Amino acid sequence: MAKPKSAITPTRSENFPEWYQQVVRAADLAENSETRGCMVIKPWGFAIWEAIQRDLDQRFKATGHQNAYFPLLIPLSYLEKEAEHAEGFATECAVVTHHRLEAEKDPETGKTKMVPRGKLAEPYVIRPTSETIIGAAFSRWTESYRDLPLLINQWANVMRWEMRPRLFLRTAEFLWQEGHTAHETREEALEETHMIHQLYADTLRDLLAIPVIMGEKTEAERFPGAESTLTVEAMVQDKKAIQAGTSHYLGQNFAKAQNITFVDRDNKEQHVHTTSWGVSTRLVGTLIMAHSDDDGLVLPPRIAPQQIVIIPVTPKEDSRDAIIEACQALATRLREQTYGKENLRVKVDTRDLGGGVKKWEWVKKGVPLRIEIGPRDLQERKICLQRRDQAANEKAFIEKEEFLRDVVETLDSVHQNLLERARNFRDENISECSDLADFEKHWEESNANPGWLITPWAGSRAEEEELSKRLKISIRCLPSEKQDESEQPCILSGQATKARAIWGRSY
Amino acid sequence: MAKPKSAITPTRSENFPEWYQQVVRAADLAENSETRGCMVIKPWGFAIWEAIQRDLDQRFKATGHQNAYFPLLIPLSYLEKEAEHAEGFATECAVVTHHRLEAEKDPETGKTKMVPRGKLAEPYVIRPTSETIIGAAFSRWTESYRDLPLLINQWANVMRWEMRPRLFLRTAEFLWQEGHTAHETREEALEETHMIHQLYADTLRDLLAIPVIMGEKTEAERFPGAESTLTVEAMVQDKKAIQAGTSHYLGQNFAKAQNITFVDRDNKEQHVHTTSWGVSTRLVGTLIMAHSDDDGLVLPPRIAPQQIVIIPVTPKEDSRDAIIEACQALATRLREQTYGKENLRVKVDTRDLGGGVKKWEWVKKGVPLRIEIGPRDLQERKICLQRRDQAANEKAFIEKEEFLRDVVETLDSVHQNLLERARNFRDENISECSDLADFEKHWEESNANPGWLITPWAGSRAEEEELSKRLKISIRCLPSEKQDESEQPCILSGQATKARAIWGRSY
Repeated sequence: MAKPKSAITPTRSENFPEWYQQVVRAADLAENSETRGCMVIKPWGFAIWEAIQRDLDQRFKATGHQNAYFPLLIPLSYLEKEAEHAEGFATECAVVTHHRLEAEKDPETGKTKMVPRGKLAEPYVIRPTSETIIGAAFSRWTESYRDLPLLINQWANVMRWEMRPRLFLRTAEFLWQEGHTAHETREEALEETHMIHQLYADTLRDLLAIPVIMGEKTEAERFPGAESTLTVEAMVQDKKAIQAGTSHYLGQNFAKAQNITFVDRDNKEQHVHTTSWGVSTRLVGTLIMAHSDDDGLVLPPRIAPQQIVIIPVTPKEDSRDAIIEACQALATRLREQTYGKENLRVKVDTRDLGGGVKKWEWVKKGVPLRIEIGPRDLQERKICLQRRDQAANEKAFIEKEEFLRDVVETLDSVHQNLLERARNFRDENISECSDLADFEKHWEESNANPGWLITPWAGSRAEEEELSKRLKISIRCLPSEKQDESEQPCILSGQATKARAIWGRSY
Repeated sequence: MAKPKSAITPTRSENFPEWYQQVVRAADLAENSETRGCMVIKPWGFAIWEAIQRDLDQRFKATGHQNAYFPLLIPLSYLEKEAEHAEGFATECAVVTHHRLEAEKDPETGKTKMVPRGKLAEPYVIRPTSETIIGAAFSRWTESYRDLPLLINQWANVMRWEMRPRLFLRTAEFLWQEGHTAHETREEALEETHMIHQLYADTLRDLLAIPVIMGEKTEAERFPGAESTLTVEAMVQDKKAIQAGTSHYLGQNFAKAQNITFVDRDNKEQHVHTTSWGVSTRLVGTLIMAHSDDDGLVLPPRIAPQQIVIIPVTPKEDSRDAIIEACQALATRLREQTYGKENLRVKVDTRDLGGGVKKWEWVKKGVPLRIEIGPRDLQERKICLQRRDQAANEKAFIEKEEFLRDVVETLDSVHQNLLERARNFRDENISECSDLADFEKHWEESNANPGWLITPWAGSRAEEEELSKRLKISIRCLPSEKQDESEQPCILSGQATKARAIWGRSY
């Protein structure tokens, strides 16, 4: 049998960035809008984000956090308070300067058009992140150590003016959650950042089937204003890195800039220690790049808007009604089963379209399990099962009752398979490197996307920045598990070090 | 026993607007921020909004709608396309004119400050509502009648620059859902608006215990750009009206302005018929004003972040542990019960504070049921039950098992009681009026907030606007149930009419 053409053109190996755009389009996840750098998230894409939200929201609440909501607009004077922070975001802020419009006649063309009026005494920026506006609220809320810890989360839109937008991965407006907490001590605040760091790693593994490397950012890569930034880093199929979630220990920097104080157990006034942490719709982009193939989107089952699609195959009119009825009955029985904390999400596709058209639509949309039931299956009480983690033409005919009995296990095996595949791919594409010449050659070879390198590292910020700029790479993190290795000479300076750094190209 | 002072100062009858502010503050629902007209929604207030979201989201999905997300910023040229719409929102638009900040030295003071830079060729407005930006997407999405209906909902923040902000009821930024749908025919689109109109009325009654009057807005009160606007109107305790949710039939106005066309069943190109509909965080304000009393917030149980609070009463050290254990055990058994589609939300308040302090905190936060268990209750296997819909000092000692058996019924009776109380209050404060002199006198009497009046009405838009302006009132709606009454002379023109209008003061 001839190998069928892939559903997505170009393939991953032909042109990865264009393949990505085409996967997003073919799965109907999102599209560009006429607002510069901003996307429209379409229902299938938004349902994925909603599933991520539901899962994370439960985890946040289970660890004592509460949701709240803070203003979209930040007075310019707030942003200025923490200098490093202001500098970090200044170049990408959308600024509101007027509060109404007026129709005005253009003296040249004679046409009326709307022009901004009502100039504001102080401009506002649309939040690029909310440390400063939430800090202002915290300063009103913390009087005594009894008010601490403050454990707040916000689901919100934020805006960072992007010059090179890319659907989900880098858009001027994006959706995210931002946690903001205040604590009595440095230790408690650090504990919070580590707890969230682990929570993010668990969510990526258990929900999105994405393995991550956990570690700390170097000073050069830290969040502007933070004392330390923990990150979970994912490798996607072009071997680039995506920073998938970060948690920051902000020390007392924001507390001092914004006067967030409390009276401690010894009746002394102190500044709180704050943290912030977030993940965004970027996770959807990470998900797409991690698992999808040349036939389109591949969704891990726990996140799939529909986990199972049932397609009735009705070549003959006389068995048509019976087959559709059997499909609906199967769906009903499946929907009664729970998977995780939710009922199975099952769709019967009864549209009046050819079976092949329907099949390929669901392949491209990434649905984990596709079921077909035709006249013969009905007679034999079988179903035809196709798994999205297998080739599109692979199928298994199995007893309906067996399928029903094992369905949760089958979905879990899809999840495990995707996770292991991603883990193997990543591990095959990380190598150790202790020689500077080898290191430089690795990045300068232009015939392919290079994988990540782990090196002994004891360089300065300036040295790191020089190397990063020259080779178009960055230190993704100092991996937590590799900071107490055997002593080796730093790849650049030769200074003995127990620390390791992971380098890669990134989105 | 002396009547205890009320927990909120002033009382409703002393100063209703100030009472409202104090209820919001005492329940820790929200507070003003330094961003003009914008509020911070605190955890207890946000949890109420989340409960509203959960309930509505399920209803929208059950009626075939899908969530999606569209850009926050709308190009000015989009807004201009529908003239009436643009005019309606022009005076309250926040305008983004620049996309970065630059530090600049003030030549006079020598201090550096951030100034807006990167002027945009075309300014954007922050969405006051999304008809125009969603319309642009719809024009890309509809090719054939097979693509219709499009049934989309968005949960989002919107911004309308408010000169007289009031927490929850009228804020420059607010949270809402906005439904946007496109249909083949006028009839289908109208059916959608009526379905949502009913869905809103059901939600207010069943979730918020608020009875509404359903009806249509007059031309003067319609949404800018709509052909008809349906509204659910609630009366709160100062007898003012709150427009709690609206659904608009937009005809082909936006479709023509934005070229949203499709090829119909006869292969002819047609413009779609669109609708839009929304409710906002204003519902939280409506809820507060509808039910709360001089002791603070009163929450209907289905919406309460905590439905039951259990307070251990531990006067003696030796029984302390046993009492706390009994409280926790009771909470566990309660949490296993479902109420509506969710498990009961129960809190045990073990804080080291006086029982009276704790009790009053939960009174002011509006928790529907308060339970106390003390040494004697423990011995007798009883609990002390206090209901928020009853006076704060009323209590009943009942068998623990009886309470557990009847708890859902008890919560339902709180809901029913609040609903009936609100309905009675409203009905007592609506009267019919057919004489213009009586009508004018009703509104001109300044000693109290006047209730609503129902009148025969056949006046013009100009007549309505003159009357409204002069008497500081408006037609809340033409109530659906009263448009085919016996013929009576219009209160203004004397022209015979079967129609009735409801007039009131409003928020």
